[in-house]
Amino acid sequence: MNIHDLIRELLVPSESKIVLLVADGLGGLPVEPGGKTELETARTPHLDTCVREAICGLSIPVLPGITPGSGPGHLGLFGYDPLEYRIGRGILEALGIHFAVGERDVAARGNFCTVDPSGLITDRRAGRPTTERCIDMCRKLQQTRIPEAELFVEPVREHRFVVIFRGDNLGDRVNDTDPQQTGHKPLEAQGTDANSARTAAAANAFAAEAGRVLQNDAPTNMVTLRGFARYPKIATMQETYGVRPAALAVYPMYKGLARLVGMEVVDAGCTLAEQMETLRRLWSQYDFFFIHYKYTDSTGEDGNFAAKVEMIERLDAEIPKIRALNPDVLIVTGDHSTPSKLRSHSWHPVPTLLWSPNCRPDHVSEFGESYCLHGGLGQFPARYLVPLALAHARRLGKFGA
Amino acid sequence: MNIHDLIRELLVPSESKIVLLVADGLGGLPVEPGGKTELETARTPHLDTCVREAICGLSIPVLPGITPGSGPGHLGLFGYDPLEYRIGRGILEALGIHFAVGERDVAARGNFCTVDPSGLITDRRAGRPTTERCIDMCRKLQQTRIPEAELFVEPVREHRFVVIFRGDNLGDRVNDTDPQQTGHKPLEAQGTDANSARTAAAANAFAAEAGRVLQNDAPTNMVTLRGFARYPKIATMQETYGVRPAALAVYPMYKGLARLVGMEVVDAGCTLAEQMETLRRLWSQYDFFFIHYKYTDSTGEDGNFAAKVEMIERLDAEIPKIRALNPDVLIVTGDHSTPSKLRSHSWHPVPTLLWSPNCRPDHVSEFGESYCLHGGLGQFPARYLVPLALAHARRLGKFGA
Repeated sequence: MNIHDLIRELLVPSESKIVLLVADGLGGLPVEPGGKTELETARTPHLDTCVREAICGLSIPVLPGITPGSGPGHLGLFGYDPLEYRIGRGILEALGIHFAVGERDVAARGNFCTVDPSGLITDRRAGRPTTERCIDMCRKLQQTRIPEAELFVEPVREHRFVVIFRGDNLGDRVNDTDPQQTGHKPLEAQGTDANSARTAAAANAFAAEAGRVLQNDAPTNMVTLRGFARYPKIATMQETYGVRPAALAVYPMYKGLARLVGMEVVDAGCTLAEQMETLRRLWSQYDFFFIHYKYTDSTGEDGNFAAKVEMIERLDAEIPKIRALNPDVLIVTGDHSTPSKLRSHSWHPVPTLLWSPNCRPDHVSEFGESYCLHGGLGQFPARYLVPLALAHARRLGKFGA
Repeated sequence: MNIHDLIRELLVPSESKIVLLVADGLGGLPVEPGGKTELETARTPHLDTCVREAICGLSIPVLPGITPGSGPGHLGLFGYDPLEYRIGRGILEALGIHFAVGERDVAARGNFCTVDPSGLITDRRAGRPTTERCIDMCRKLQQTRIPEAELFVEPVREHRFVVIFRGDNLGDRVNDTDPQQTGHKPLEAQGTDANSARTAAAANAFAAEAGRVLQNDAPTNMVTLRGFARYPKIATMQETYGVRPAALAVYPMYKGLARLVGMEVVDAGCTLAEQMETLRRLWSQYDFFFIHYKYTDSTGEDGNFAAKVEMIERLDAEIPKIRALNPDVLIVTGDHSTPSKLRSHSWHPVPTLLWSPNCRPDHVSEFGESYCLHGGLGQFPARYLVPLALAHARRLGKFGA
């Protein structure tokens, strides 16, 4: 039996409030042998106060050893098994530029590339054009029309753009057209079923039009497409958990991921202080709040240990504003680890605290990877966090008599 | 592969003996911040002695965050996945009054209700009649006959009774007939398949008869039925684990749950001392003993922290009698937590010890939730306890060469 079906059976009406604070890429690594992680190094008096009344643990975003992207990382935190709910690259790119993808859409990631007069690719990234040029080229492509589908072309950055094919019965089992090496023509798109063949025909028609309108624009004189993906069918958090969820995120991709699971994406400003003010203002209107904080990840990706420590301390300073609202459950976690030592996302489990008057305290007294190891949540799949939050918020009745 | 199939493959003959002592609702919570749980507060010298030679952990009855009823809680302890084996409300009620439900039976929970002359319900619980009146009314209903099925009507308490429909090919996909609000007639029973339609016809015939024989008995002048359930098909513990199991329980529901998995339910008296005496007397006749102790749960449900502590201490005092019999494996655990702070079952993991000469001790030295957190069993699904018991009792051979 699916845990979502079980939860739907057990839901009881409640006014209780849950806050899920996601510090992106929170988990880290020590740089020196015997040293501390970024989180262990940071002075976090307010998080530590929570920890002493909370239950702690380390969440595993997907499976041991698997490094998640932002999509799977967040789906897990929202309670959706990231191995069951796959979000294609095209959809993620579209979410990332805040394009409102819908159910009749297939999205693909596009790359500008350079072809020689015989059509063979000489540079798969068109010499990494400026984003300004990317925007100009997309403007040209926006003028094209194909009979197979409605078409949207949106720039992303440098050689990258997004194309959305909109129409009825469009499938997404379509191969990438990037041959992955120079000296070859872009591949023909092919669909493995009737609906996907429709999408492939639209993709080939679009590529032909692109070659025509860009023919004098070398080095950006051709396109390849990859990551064809339909908008995934996901039951909303409202339906599944009986909550009214609001997302307080700054960056488009996280807003998009929240929208994917039915959250209302509210205008939360650009800073953590503005997000906290938004939380306070909307406190009575929703009962599940997802707050996304980006800078623990971006400083980790930059390999800047000290800056990540600083970003964690800034987050800590805002915690009293959340506690002042008297939530029934406050979770602080990350969607994955981003150790500055590795300058990238990683597979390491993510430090997590769940504060609630109904939790069983575990004598952990500081927030940090090595302390959480001894916490009452143990090491657990991230997708159980929402069920645990619902339980602690007294939103789940008894299973069986 | 199903773990039961695996175990059946690996079973080796053995005379070893396993005792599963279930302190119902054992797990708890501290009442004061920084305080201890009921189990941590109780003086348990004998359990602590076991713990020092045992492996400890915290069992998760169903899934993280899910609060189990007694049915799922015990099925898990007996090694059956409670999400795979669902026991309907009607069957549990029948087990609870010690009715020997069989494979041709569909059981439903009945409620006496009050209807006005036009048949509209004015009180869904018939003013909560005395149990004596419930018994009298059931006696009247026992006189009714319907052509669709053999009929058994048994009182439970106040407005509650059980009805069992016995016959061939009776299904249980039948709706509840309680409209859940006054001012409506009882709903007609309908089945969603041919077999269930047969049961629905029997239920409607029974309701019509009930209305006739009770017509002058307001406020208990009508009935509603809910929780239609067939006797679940469960392979017995004998077949699955190769054991001869005996159940030493006092309360009917736990006897019923034990019977469901093929245990022999023996007359174990009414007190823990009598249960221990029964254990001693039957020691040579069985090799798996389930002992159920109710009072850790009932005191928790009462919200009586001190009484729960006292009940744990009384249980502790009996432990030497079990140890004196030299079991090969002794497990002490609960089917769920019942923190007196919450006055109800809860989702919190359950402190568990597994004592055996073959276990790998883990340096836990006292029995309690926060100590078990550091035990060698970690946090584990309760349904793995029986496989672990069989292993420690040397009843499982090697898997693969």
